Amino acid sequence: MARALDLVGDVDLTVVVNVGDDALTHGVYVSPDLDTVLYTLARIEGPHGWGIAGDEHKVMDTMAWLGADTTFRIGDRDLATNLFRTAELSAGRTLSEVTASLVESFGVEASILPVSDDPVRTIVHTADGPISFQRYFVHRRHQDPVEDLVYEGSGEARPAPGVLEAIGEADVVVIAPSNPPLSIWPVLNVPGVTDAVANADRVIAVSPLFGGKALKGPAAEVMAALGLPPGNEGVLAAYDGLVTDLVVDHEDATDRQRLSGPDLHVHVTATRIADEDKAATFGSWITHLVSR
Amino acid sequence: MARALDLVGDVDLTVVVNVGDDALTHGVYVSPDLDTVLYTLARIEGPHGWGIAGDEHKVMDTMAWLGADTTFRIGDRDLATNLFRTAELSAGRTLSEVTASLVESFGVEASILPVSDDPVRTIVHTADGPISFQRYFVHRRHQDPVEDLVYEGSGEARPAPGVLEAIGEADVVVIAPSNPPLSIWPVLNVPGVTDAVANADRVIAVSPLFGGKALKGPAAEVMAALGLPPGNEGVLAAYDGLVTDLVVDHEDATDRQRLSGPDLHVHVTATRIADEDKAATFGSWITHLVSR
Repeated sequence: MARALDLVGDVDLTVVVNVGDDALTHGVYVSPDLDTVLYTLARIEGPHGWGIAGDEHKVMDTMAWLGADTTFRIGDRDLATNLFRTAELSAGRTLSEVTASLVESFGVEASILPVSDDPVRTIVHTADGPISFQRYFVHRRHQDPVEDLVYEGSGEARPAPGVLEAIGEADVVVIAPSNPPLSIWPVLNVPGVTDAVANADRVIAVSPLFGGKALKGPAAEVMAALGLPPGNEGVLAAYDGLVTDLVVDHEDATDRQRLSGPDLHVHVTATRIADEDKAATFGSWITHLVSR
Repeated sequence: MARALDLVGDVDLTVVVNVGDDALTHGVYVSPDLDTVLYTLARIEGPHGWGIAGDEHKVMDTMAWLGADTTFRIGDRDLATNLFRTAELSAGRTLSEVTASLVESFGVEASILPVSDDPVRTIVHTADGPISFQRYFVHRRHQDPVEDLVYEGSGEARPAPGVLEAIGEADVVVIAPSNPPLSIWPVLNVPGVTDAVANADRVIAVSPLFGGKALKGPAAEVMAALGLPPGNEGVLAAYDGLVTDLVVDHEDATDRQRLSGPDLHVHVTATRIADEDKAATFGSWITHLVSR
């Protein structure tokens, strides 16, 4: 989504990113969502939605040989990003300062802001008890039915510098087609963020669902487990009156009629962003939607 | 020194290692002396006395590109060792447990024991104030005159499991030709270690000096700064009655006559361990010395 908007020439883009998936792994501070946005906007993202394209894994291979659990496998160049962040955080810089520095190094023009510099950790409650997001997602491959989600620290977290300002000044707030409970709620849960979004004139959510299922990941399952209705009703319920526009895929074209109302515009377009061309097309479609 | 003794076939070798140089760098727990002994005994040590021979530096090069201070430059495979250690320590294992695991992975037969699992940090007092060992040694290239040395934590540190036992059971304790104040004192300063060494029948110190100077590193300068006499008198003073034998190089052959006494044997041999052959020769020389 960020890439689609970034590809539109004259968009002043600020991406506010979830930090609930952040974790210490191998003692290194990883921030998977920040890095995915960073690498995507730097046009070097790996083929599976994380890491750097063509990255080698010599360090992790050696660590595996030493007996480390390298289920969370970080490429060598990606490791440099994560070690740089770890070192800078240890030296007392904030996550948003380090992110700004990475954005500059990678030549990204957009602003990338962690929603907070304070720790927010998504904890997944399962039948086996509470586990960290990375344990749930990477180690256990999101197979556990989710009984509850807790965003540890989010109650006390302060929005990072610029977050509320960026939302407040934006012509439009776009909620990316991410997993609503796992990736968007921990952002909205930081005090002040939901209010700022609610005050925006235009809030466009792009649905992550295609015929009721996410392209990848457990969005539909997690939403169902948390009692949200199936399909795009669930997406709307997840955002609870916050959005002015919902964008759905052609596959769910009937949702336009069914879900539109006086306070909600439902739009239908091709939302699969399979390649650069499709991303650019989708990006201009969104900007035209906004200028309408 | 460890390599020399390891090359002698039937020696049951335990190396007790300084941890005062341990540090967090880039957020990674490095233990330079442990790794130097590990890599040396695994026959993969780098050419400058640290790191792994032929190691690449892709991660550090990328970190430098990101703006990190990579003065303390860790090779990619070496980084895997350090990240493995960092991760295992974060998971609650002790430094000696992690070291034992590395020793096994690298196929080393000797035992390598950190002198303590508790933190001991060598702090170098300079005209600019107290700085960490790594800042003194690596960042400032041991140029600062040393005003004082403090082994932070050593008063409360407990010897790691097996350390006192290994010293107590040894036929001979050999003090390696390392920098006495910087590398040996932080070992001897851990409560119980000096007493254990003092109780050994035979304690052989190998002098790090050649005509009053170390082959590399600031041993002579640091010893002088701390008020120790020059040359091998200084080495003996540093070990303060602890050693039964001092081994000096041919270059200091006159020290035999000058320094030998009723409680001290001074031996002269070639102490430069320039290659594997010389190491093996020196190793057997030491073992013959012991069997005399």
